[in-house]
Amino acid sequence: MLLGQVAGKVWATKKAPHLTGQTFLTVAVGKDLLVCADCVGAGEGETVLVATGSAARVAAGDHVPVDAAIIGIIDP
Amino acid sequence: MLLGQVAGKVWATKKAPHLTGQTFLTVAVGKDLLVCADCVGAGEGETVLVATGSAARVAAGDHVPVDAAIIGIIDP
Amino acid sequence: MLLGQVAGKVWATKKAPHLTGQTFLTVAVGKDLLVCADCVGAGEGETVLVATGSAARVAAGDHVPVDAAIIGIIDP
Amino acid sequence: MLLGQVAGKVWATKKAPHLTGQTFLTVAVGKDLLVCADCVGAGEGETVLVATGSAARVAAGDHVPVDAAIIGIIDP
Amino acid sequence: MLLGQVAGKVWATKKAPHLTGQTFLTVAVGKDLLVCADCVGAGEGETVLVATGSAARVAAGDHVPVDAAIIGIIDP
Repeated sequence: MLLGQVAGKVWATKKAPHLTGQTFLTVAVGKDLLVCADCVGAGEGETVLVATGSAARVAAGDHVPVDAAIIGIIDP
Repeated sequence: MLLGQVAGKVWATKKAPHLTGQTFLTVAVGKDLLVCADCVGAGEGETVLVATGSAARVAAGDHVPVDAAIIGIIDP
Repeated sequence: MLLGQVAGKVWATKKAPHLTGQTFLTVAVGKDLLVCADCVGAGEGETVLVATGSAARVAAGDHVPVDAAIIGIIDP
Repeated sequence: MLLGQVAGKVWATKKAPHLTGQTFLTVAVGKDLLVCADCVGAGEGETVLVATGSAARVAAGDHVPVDAAIIGIIDP
Repeated sequence: MLLGQVAGKVWATKKAPHLTGQTFLTVAVGKDLLVCADCVGAGEGETVLVATGSAARVAAGDHVPVDAAIIGIIDP
């Protein structure tokens, strides 16, 4: 998993089915910016644990077409 | 997921079964160019959300051999 | 998916089961060289569409242990 | 798989279901820092074998949303 | 798939279940060193074909938590 910092939020009104209700947060991982499904209710500035690939769907749900999910908030 | 900008379209007359009818858009992600199955009807210049890996098939269909799909259009 | 140019062919007499009969082409993707299962009959110099990861097996067959496959030939 | 050195531990009180009881170690892989589920009881400073992607769940359990796991400790 | 050169061997006495009996070879792929399950009996110095991701388990066995496997030896 990757460690990153929640940077903000993105909105997509037009999206694939099964993404409705999903919150998408941008997470700064090193110099990269990853858009992640939020599975734990993370807030801006928090350090989070990001799972990528098929693991993201284990967290977000099998039918949710995401490849990155926030699966934990690192204790401060 | 990655954020990118739709750059254009590619055509492949000769292709694997199950790709028939699929629209392939090129998406600029940073300095890289990714060819993505379009699952939301995106247009050139729009900022889109791209899912990679097996998540692309959750969006495009289980039997469609793609590894990248546009799953959302970012609200302007 | 990635866009690349077919560069050549590789032969492996000693290989894993389920690879018998599979054609392996080298494809130049930017500065990288990827060995891909050919699912469309591509020829040297052609610009092709390459699917990586589990998508390659959707194209080449579930029991074929490949992680990259040529799934289309880009129209000239 | 990747070879890396166990660097430390991270704690996440708020996390996705199925992560409870899982130990997360940070592993230095070259210049990158990867957070891995520990499946073998590795200790700080040990050289370990890290499996990424869906292989991590084969080691940690199908319903555990992780994308990296320590699957072996390299003999000194 | 990637082309690489077998560089050596690693031993891990303490490892995840289902890894027992598996031979792990280090393979130089460009500037990177990848640890691969050997599925074809490759030897040091040989040029090999490496499959990564879930394809490695198609070659090594579904319950073997590996993400890279040698699936062929390139003909000299």
